Amino acid sequence: MTDMNRQWCVADAPGGSGLGLTHEQFEYREAAIPEPRDGEVLIRNVYFSCDPMNHAWVKGMEERFRAIPIGQPMCGGVAGRVVASRHPDFKPGDAVTGFLEFADYVTTGAFDRTGTPLQRIPTDFSLASGLATLGMTGLCAYFGLADIGKPTLGDTVVVSGAAGAIGTIAGQLAKLSGARVIGIAGGGSKCAMLTGELGFDAAIDYKAEDVAARMAELAPRGIDVFFDNVGGGILDAALANMAHGGRIVICGGIAGYNAQAPGLHNHMALAMRGCTMAGFFFFDHVGRFAEGVARLADWMRGGHIKEVLDIADGFDKVPEAALGQFMGANRGKQLVKIVEDPGT
Amino acid sequence: MTDMNRQWCVADAPGGSGLGLTHEQFEYREAAIPEPRDGEVLIRNVYFSCDPMNHAWVKGMEERFRAIPIGQPMCGGVAGRVVASRHPDFKPGDAVTGFLEFADYVTTGAFDRTGTPLQRIPTDFSLASGLATLGMTGLCAYFGLADIGKPTLGDTVVVSGAAGAIGTIAGQLAKLSGARVIGIAGGGSKCAMLTGELGFDAAIDYKAEDVAARMAELAPRGIDVFFDNVGGGILDAALANMAHGGRIVICGGIAGYNAQAPGLHNHMALAMRGCTMAGFFFFDHVGRFAEGVARLADWMRGGHIKEVLDIADGFDKVPEAALGQFMGANRGKQLVKIVEDPGT
Repeated sequence: MTDMNRQWCVADAPGGSGLGLTHEQFEYREAAIPEPRDGEVLIRNVYFSCDPMNHAWVKGMEERFRAIPIGQPMCGGVAGRVVASRHPDFKPGDAVTGFLEFADYVTTGAFDRTGTPLQRIPTDFSLASGLATLGMTGLCAYFGLADIGKPTLGDTVVVSGAAGAIGTIAGQLAKLSGARVIGIAGGGSKCAMLTGELGFDAAIDYKAEDVAARMAELAPRGIDVFFDNVGGGILDAALANMAHGGRIVICGGIAGYNAQAPGLHNHMALAMRGCTMAGFFFFDHVGRFAEGVARLADWMRGGHIKEVLDIADGFDKVPEAALGQFMGANRGKQLVKIVEDPGT
Repeated sequence: MTDMNRQWCVADAPGGSGLGLTHEQFEYREAAIPEPRDGEVLIRNVYFSCDPMNHAWVKGMEERFRAIPIGQPMCGGVAGRVVASRHPDFKPGDAVTGFLEFADYVTTGAFDRTGTPLQRIPTDFSLASGLATLGMTGLCAYFGLADIGKPTLGDTVVVSGAAGAIGTIAGQLAKLSGARVIGIAGGGSKCAMLTGELGFDAAIDYKAEDVAARMAELAPRGIDVFFDNVGGGILDAALANMAHGGRIVICGGIAGYNAQAPGLHNHMALAMRGCTMAGFFFFDHVGRFAEGVARLADWMRGGHIKEVLDIADGFDKVPEAALGQFMGANRGKQLVKIVEDPGT
């Protein structure tokens, strides 16, 4: 602990191509610890979440994320403990998550920077799990599958970015639905994790294998559900291998963030095979967060979902961790732990 | 009339790029008029329908359309009169449509070459209307909008290929739903037809205007429904201009048939704005043809849909008419009339 408030701010530096961030855009600053006003809480952040959304926020995106002004702290998913409260619903020791500044300490009312209510973490889970599997990561996997993918008994489900944050959960949830699940990941060791500890039925190593050919081989009757975290050529290969009536969940498009991904050429498969390709905007589902968290928590308690966390240690690790996910450096959910959980 | 049966067959000639056909692939042949066997009817074809599907059939496509062997007659939508019947449900004079050979006379059982039941044309409509607005063309517009696009009061609907067969109907059906409708077509005169006789609210001339910029101008709050007959760059521009929760109907992709269309780069808009992009395979909906035809017929009877027919006259016009639609030569539905309707 310190009396000083460390922050990661948006520097006045050129960005990478597309939505890509560079190390130079992260500026370390120090400030005073803020005082909560009436109706606010003071939160001691413990974990930061590294998500592609961090990039969108810094650069601005399509009116969804206004660009954070230069010199202001970056925002993202955080988990922490209330250390002082002037809000009747919160008391010191409460474990909360929200989209807030990447700083040691933040003050906020009951709604975070996206206008979403601060979320409480179930008391039998760690702050890390509250931010990962019971946070945006797990919820995206759940909403994407439950609302769009709708996997069921005997379906063949393919997940891209399968060794990443959402992919590891999406694949396991698809298994719970009685589907056969194939994951796509980069490298033999990630693929071994999928078919080993996470129970996927098969894996495709996109760095070593012809993805389209392997899809055709592993899903000879076509792909019923494609859960996409990647976009580009892998999505195009999936389009070419969809089963009649198949569903494509557009969850992420990490291939498109840093460089110009190859365009899609096979979209007419949607018509020829009566398929649906749909995305969802996470914050539209705020009314269902409680339902999703309750289900995910029960599946974790029952041992049906294994959580894969990739935790960088220390406030100074934020730029490296935030940028690393675009090179596939992480396994599962990339978090940065900035301090030990002070507890209740 | 003649005792000889003219046919357009698949010639042993190189095809165009992609799915494109060339004049050289059409071979004129003459044969004897076939005799219906027990359970069959003999149909005197009166109209042929020119559809992109003709190409798919000749070249074969993704197990959906097995390629027609060289030397065999081409197939497609036809409308004609039963002239002899050995099937209890049909009698001479019955007006029918189906997917059958491009010949003067064909024999068939109660199911056509796609396995779809022969369709009867309501007696107060012409054979041409039975093949066009009450056939695959009108039904594709209806199913695409009713099942996927779901336009409603106050929505902004954009239709590409709007001066074509399905586009002219889709735009008018969207108007019936209370939406504001913008059509995209090539050339001032087609655009004038859309905003003039067909009642579209606005038109974009893709040959003269910047489609993406005009979409943004004409749909400042975004596109709620995009009904796509084209694919390529126009679909990509629409993706960039979708409203939150918008629906994209993938009906056709004529841009992709003859040449390599530009790929799609904006698919992540589906996630950022919670949009859906879906197609449908026409023959999946056979159980609902009767419902669709009944609705379309009533809208036509009420004067709510104006039918735009582009009718080439004469058996010899088939290759020119079938190829012309890929250059945007037609307005509305391209048919070839091969003989006067002999009537009941």
